[in-house]
Amino acid sequence: MSIYDERINQLRVLMKDKNIDAYIVCTQDFHSSEYVGEYFKEREYLSGFTGSAGTLVITYNKAALWTDGRYYLQAEEQLSVSNIELMKMGQKNVDTIEQYLTKSFKDIIKKSNAVDSSCDNLKKSHYELNKFTIGFDGRTVNNNFVKHLKTKIKLDISIYADEDLVGQVWKDRPLLSAKPVWELDFGYTGRMREEKLEALREEMEKTDSDICVLASLDDIAWLLNLRGNDIQYNPVFLSYMIIDMNHAVLYANEAIFSNKIKEQLELTQIAIKPYNEVYIDIAKIDSNKTVLVDYDKINYRLVHLIPSECKIQNIQNPIVRMKAIKNNIECDNMRKAHLKDGIAVTKFMYWLKTNVGKIEITELNAAKKLEELRANQEGYIGASFAPIMAYGKHGAIVHYCATQESDVKLEKKGFLLSDTGAHYLEGTTDITRTYVLGELQSEEKAAFTLVLRGNLNLASARFKYGITGLHLDILARQPLWENGLDYNHGTGHGVGYVLNVHEGPNCIGWQIKPDKIKDTILEEGMITSNEPGLYLTNEFGIRHENLILCKMLCETEYGKFMGFETLTLVPFDLEGIDKTLLSDREIDWLNKYHQYVYKMLAPYFEGNELKWLQMATKMI
Amino acid sequence: MSIYDERINQLRVLMKDKNIDAYIVCTQDFHSSEYVGEYFKEREYLSGFTGSAGTLVITYNKAALWTDGRYYLQAEEQLSVSNIELMKMGQKNVDTIEQYLTKSFKDIIKKSNAVDSSCDNLKKSHYELNKFTIGFDGRTVNNNFVKHLKTKIKLDISIYADEDLVGQVWKDRPLLSAKPVWELDFGYTGRMREEKLEALREEMEKTDSDICVLASLDDIAWLLNLRGNDIQYNPVFLSYMIIDMNHAVLYANEAIFSNKIKEQLELTQIAIKPYNEVYIDIAKIDSNKTVLVDYDKINYRLVHLIPSECKIQNIQNPIVRMKAIKNNIECDNMRKAHLKDGIAVTKFMYWLKTNVGKIEITELNAAKKLEELRANQEGYIGASFAPIMAYGKHGAIVHYCATQESDVKLEKKGFLLSDTGAHYLEGTTDITRTYVLGELQSEEKAAFTLVLRGNLNLASARFKYGITGLHLDILARQPLWENGLDYNHGTGHGVGYVLNVHEGPNCIGWQIKPDKIKDTILEEGMITSNEPGLYLTNEFGIRHENLILCKMLCETEYGKFMGFETLTLVPFDLEGIDKTLLSDREIDWLNKYHQYVYKMLAPYFEGNELKWLQMATKMI
Repeated sequence: MSIYDERINQLRVLMKDKNIDAYIVCTQDFHSSEYVGEYFKEREYLSGFTGSAGTLVITYNKAALWTDGRYYLQAEEQLSVSNIELMKMGQKNVDTIEQYLTKSFKDIIKKSNAVDSSCDNLKKSHYELNKFTIGFDGRTVNNNFVKHLKTKIKLDISIYADEDLVGQVWKDRPLLSAKPVWELDFGYTGRMREEKLEALREEMEKTDSDICVLASLDDIAWLLNLRGNDIQYNPVFLSYMIIDMNHAVLYANEAIFSNKIKEQLELTQIAIKPYNEVYIDIAKIDSNKTVLVDYDKINYRLVHLIPSECKIQNIQNPIVRMKAIKNNIECDNMRKAHLKDGIAVTKFMYWLKTNVGKIEITELNAAKKLEELRANQEGYIGASFAPIMAYGKHGAIVHYCATQESDVKLEKKGFLLSDTGAHYLEGTTDITRTYVLGELQSEEKAAFTLVLRGNLNLASARFKYGITGLHLDILARQPLWENGLDYNHGTGHGVGYVLNVHEGPNCIGWQIKPDKIKDTILEEGMITSNEPGLYLTNEFGIRHENLILCKMLCETEYGKFMGFETLTLVPFDLEGIDKTLLSDREIDWLNKYHQYVYKMLAPYFEGNELKWLQMATKMI
Repeated sequence: MSIYDERINQLRVLMKDKNIDAYIVCTQDFHSSEYVGEYFKEREYLSGFTGSAGTLVITYNKAALWTDGRYYLQAEEQLSVSNIELMKMGQKNVDTIEQYLTKSFKDIIKKSNAVDSSCDNLKKSHYELNKFTIGFDGRTVNNNFVKHLKTKIKLDISIYADEDLVGQVWKDRPLLSAKPVWELDFGYTGRMREEKLEALREEMEKTDSDICVLASLDDIAWLLNLRGNDIQYNPVFLSYMIIDMNHAVLYANEAIFSNKIKEQLELTQIAIKPYNEVYIDIAKIDSNKTVLVDYDKINYRLVHLIPSECKIQNIQNPIVRMKAIKNNIECDNMRKAHLKDGIAVTKFMYWLKTNVGKIEITELNAAKKLEELRANQEGYIGASFAPIMAYGKHGAIVHYCATQESDVKLEKKGFLLSDTGAHYLEGTTDITRTYVLGELQSEEKAAFTLVLRGNLNLASARFKYGITGLHLDILARQPLWENGLDYNHGTGHGVGYVLNVHEGPNCIGWQIKPDKIKDTILEEGMITSNEPGLYLTNEFGIRHENLILCKMLCETEYGKFMGFETLTLVPFDLEGIDKTLLSDREIDWLNKYHQYVYKMLAPYFEGNELKWLQMATKMI
């Protein structure tokens, strides 16, 4: 029996104690963060699956884990040691969590009826009611999740969300992170904390809200112009906020603030209280108040502690949009960050392509090399997400992360897919390049070029104001769709400013939910990734990713017209391109991009590196 | 005072009688038909505005008419003789009907308060309540319209919908149409009436509905494989239906059915009852029944006569989707209809281009010529909508319809925009061509070519199953958007089979309402128009329109992939094209289309016409 099965069995003992029929372990921390601190990795502790998305469901006799297309292959591998069943979300004939639970509970009813007809009356009283209890830590799920469960499971269920049972099983659990908080200066943020608070209060007024409850860490960090380090890759700190028209309370471990920051917060009328006290204070909100909460970004336990007499404004947290629209200072800084990142990544490309086959390069030491080159840049903070350095068939595993076990040596053939990013004081980067390490098959070149066409077409889009990523997505996919190909992920996500590398509301994809479309209109100042891909399982993966900044180009009698500025400054590997597959316009766009990359990077290159850069950005 | 102002004043007398503060006159007949019979043209009778979309609102001291971008110019002209204010829907700072009514009512309150403070107590009791009555003929609006009114007008309003006040003013009103009904044979419809009824009942079962009420004339005509002629351009007949699992009742003027058709209907268990009796029978539906009604396609009065105890299934009427997905026989017929239409329209193009400047050609006689050429084709039934034959600056009026007054002579210069269509027994066509009558300015050629690029890009789209016209729209607009240009209408609409030339649910446009997206997924067998345009007020208009049939192209491990077959078979006028603006792919698509047009049409052309056809479809 694997350690995971053992841990799950320990949990089952507690479940039986509490009469919980199914226990759900989600990926989230208490803040719906995308990445979570070590303290919160309960799902990983119980299942061994390390992907960034996945939900584990445990009943008395079964366990199953749901994850999406990015993680099918990884999860298959990591779950192979345990008895946990992999549920591939989005695939035909794969039950949803709700369908799975419904079936499990119906099985129990069936068996219990069978037992009834014999003589065992011990457990009967419980099952006779056909009532089932589902448990989870209410701080790790959101309200919509619970609502969905209750709607979809067509049985009488009750919820037990007040305890963290996995925490009781997890003996050697890491402590909650408490890293120091630091300030991001006005020269980087372009907007004072006071001004942001005022803007938030204006938005609260517009929706007749008296109080706003925040639990999303990047929203709090953005609002306060503070950054932390409690979660890997996300420079945020564990906290909550409750804000009304005159006061603001920040719930966090006081030890993480310097005296200077504490003084500054005091000056802005922001009080600091202990992290967990939010669960006490939220229950004390005046019952005649209207409370603005974004059910997508606040945990179930918090929602349920708000006095039931309060009026709830469940709308998109106003900070989401304010934060997504980068101001001019942020945009200028982002350009600087991308220049630094472009220098580092392009030097990496030079190193990689001139050394592969000559010195020992593996996925892991390539990632280390790239990190070193980035760290040489002034203002470097750290990686913005777990680097993907995926050679050959590893490239087809969309969120592959090399480990000592999986690490392979790069040879002078095939592709290296490298999806990495960094935080600098001047902003956050996220770039994917697919490097050609040697001779390619024509099929490989075609794949590389088709994906590149999608990237170029999206980057060059010109569109009317009002358009969303839902409308634009086809530009990136059309070259693949024309050939019966596709990729199983979105085309783009919003990117934070020295914050989460994945942030909303802007995104690019054809499957955006209808009720979210309005929120995803592309505004001037929004930064989104442009990352079409193509993955041939067990063969190779291609992805080309740049960050693109939405700008207004002109206003005519026909309306306002928008377009993108590409921020990322790294050549696409020309050796991967089959020029015959590109249109004249695509060739023109590519050449213009490469000319611009050369112009920006050349001052930082010399000697052989500069000669190589000229070649790498030459007109085709 | 114009006759329109006089008629409105007569209506105001009746309004005062009934204490109605505002009376709304919509365009619809009792069936939400797009085109309406003469009997129903109350809005035109009162305002003089002949457009196919517009709503007239009359208060005691004002009158205003709302219409959309297609009709701004036309309405401006037609309303100029009366005191009716034009409200350009969709433009900034233009009040909606609800805002307009709210303001009007608030004005009354203000004035009434002013009166109060003096001594007139006569009218006080009415206004003191701040309660207002809005009137309209409940048969000419749908339920959503009324719901919207009530939600948006933030005052206490009541509805008076039981009387047709305009009918009482309209002395010389035409009779309700009662044209003979005819049968469309199986060889054309590809599906028997019995089979369609069974399919409808299956859909009713899926939604647990006992009864389905139909008021949309094209749905009824499709279901019964019958056609009529009660409404210009729409081969439908005035009727309603109430269908349960065992019975079906058709409410229509019995005189319009031949004995043969009556016998056949009887054989299929379909009873005929008088047209107006539907308003009696619907009120008698058993209160324990579940009634399927599509609130978008059934009038307010009908909805409100359904016993309130009945359960209502307000969903898209299942026939909408069944009718939109053409079966193989319908598709084959549609190809035949388009061959016939292609022959007629291309012969018209030859006649036009070889005779312009030599013989007297006007908009009206050009339209007549085209109609004659179509009428020469076997199986011709009639025009599928009011032909648009718009020369020069008339082309910029999107739904221009030449009249004796507006008619102009075509000269050997500029563009003739011709948007026309026909019904044949084999199907319905809708085609727009912009003909070059002489030398063009480079700006005109550029406009012609940009719009053509949009048409070619959309026609050549390849996309994954699940995609809608919302996702595809950018393909048609991108060439214009790149140049800060746009057109103020959708890119495409569904087309009926010997039915309404505009039918849903399929359509192409970036502004489709979020809640309708799911219904507009493009299915194999759907036929949609592809008609980007560009309109320069007082200069010229360009539109290129073909009908495109959605087909499944292949199924791969990445999904099902779809594309379009272009049905329309008429050359695009090569003299309008600036080849330097086309990409290689676009040139290739255009050449392939022209080769196909030539191959299909050549057998029907000879002599000079054939030589000309060769030139008109030559490779560029």
